[in-house]
Parts: sequence; structure tokens; C-alpha cells
Amino acid sequence: MTGPVRPQRVDGRWEDIDLMAYKSEGSAPFRDVTRQILFMDPALACELRYFEIAPGGWSTLERHEHVHAVMVQRGRGRVLVGDRVFRVDEHDLVYIASLTWHQFRADADSPLGFLCMVNTTRDRPQLPDVEALRTLREYPEVDSFIRA
Amino acid sequence: MTGPVRPQRVDGRWEDIDLMAYKSEGSAPFRDVTRQILFMDPALACELRYFEIAPGGWSTLERHEHVHAVMVQRGRGRVLVGDRVFRVDEHDLVYIASLTWHQFRADADSPLGFLCMVNTTRDRPQLPDVEALRTLREYPEVDSFIRA
Repeated sequence: MTGPVRPQRVDGRWEDIDLMAYKSEGSAPFRDVTRQILFMDPALACELRYFEIAPGGWSTLERHEHVHAVMVQRGRGRVLVGDRVFRVDEHDLVYIASLTWHQFRADADSPLGFLCMVNTTRDRPQLPDVEALRTLREYPEVDSFIRA
Repeated sequence: MTGPVRPQRVDGRWEDIDLMAYKSEGSAPFRDVTRQILFMDPALACELRYFEIAPGGWSTLERHEHVHAVMVQRGRGRVLVGDRVFRVDEHDLVYIASLTWHQFRADADSPLGFLCMVNTTRDRPQLPDVEALRTLREYPEVDSFIRA
């Protein structure tokens, strides 16, 4: 790091912060998501990451033991949390509790950029099996969200 | 908490999140600063807070062992980090290293609102004594910032 301040250069991009793939291609289903690590430091027990989903894109439907503390920074979209779907807009807060299925989707005409705070020490995400998907799809709102 | 999503209602205010005093009045020097705790959870090793400094206001000049991971959310101002002063604007990132003197000031015509991530377990801030202030004031830029 060149100094204590890293300016945002254009929307959703910061000086000296690499634009990374969301996940390895093929490791899990997702579309048009990027990842940037804003703060990761041995002195901090959490990391702060910035994810941006391009218009029409979506993050992986997954769950894990660790929790997510999310704040939308840019654009708008929808988020599935458990058996409910919520609209989210700039600066809205989202808490993803432990072992709760979740997925983010950008609107068709807007990116969805958000901060996500997680514990540095955390478990790997789990993908839903056929049984879990069947249970989720019993909720019509969730079914249509997952199919979108 | 009523649900996993807490919308921002107006700039810098969220549903079901209390607007708190920055510190107890008289405990340390500051002017026109509010504090909101956005995420504080037993499952998270860090807290995410939102501070907002009114136009012309300033946070306490202090240091501590724990580090700050800061992201500006609203308005603009300046920040003192160690022996340097930086202008900051929306979405800029600021890292305050351990035991580094720091202070935030909003511009005269703008609030300065920022997120601050800290470890849940952390030490209390230290205020500068006469000797520390004298050392800081040897830097003309810092001297004028502190006097402002």
C-alpha cells in the first residue's frame, strides 16, 4: 500500500486494488460478478470486500456457517435471504445469518455493487443439493427468483 | 431486528438503527459527530459503525492499538493520519494503522459520513499529551489542521 488513503478512481474501482474474479470459473453457478478486497489485514479479524454484479447478473445461491454483513453501495437489485426476496437499493443493509441460503441479483438495467464484511477465519460455502432446491422452490417467490 | 434487510430511510439514517452520541460529552474534545452501529453481532469478529460529522465539525484527535478500516460514504472533508493530512471524498478508503494519531474534519460546507470497521475486542483510545501535541505540531500541515 502506498499510503493510508486509497481514493475511488471511478465508480466501484479504487487505486491499487485489483479487480478479481468472483470465483474460479466453473466452481459454482454465477454470472457477471467481480470481487475486490478493500481491507484484509493481520490486525483485523474481518475482511471488507466489494462485489459488483453487472446488469442481469447474479451471485451463487449458497449458504455457510459464517455470516455476511452487507451494505449496498451502487445500483439496485434483489436479494434472496432464506425463504424471502427483498428489493435493495443504495446504502441498504443486509444481514445474512448463519446457514441461510442467499443469492444476489442485479436488476436488468442496473449494476448491483455491495460491501460485504466477513470474519477472516470462515468456512467454505455450500451449494444446495436437489432436496434443498426442492424445499426452496416450495416458496413461489423464491422459485421465480431462482429461475430468473 | 425485524428482518434481514434494513433500508436507508434518508441519507445517513437507517430503519431501526439508533442515532447515538459519538462519545460522552466532555470525555474528549470533538464537535458535531454522531454514531450509528450498523452491524454488531456475536457471530462477527468486527463491528461496522457509521459516523457522521456535521459541516465544520471534527472527531477526537486520538490513537489506539486497534486499527480502523474506513470508507467515506457521504460528503467530504480531510483526515489527519500520522504526520500527514489528506482530502477525502465519497467512497475513498482510509486505513488507520495501530498507534497512529488520527482525526477527521468535515469541510465547512459539507458533512463527512464514513463507515468504520473495527475489531469487536479493542483497546480504548488515547489522547495526546503536551509532548505528543508538540511533536505533531512540528509538521506545519498538521499544525494548521489541528488548529482549524
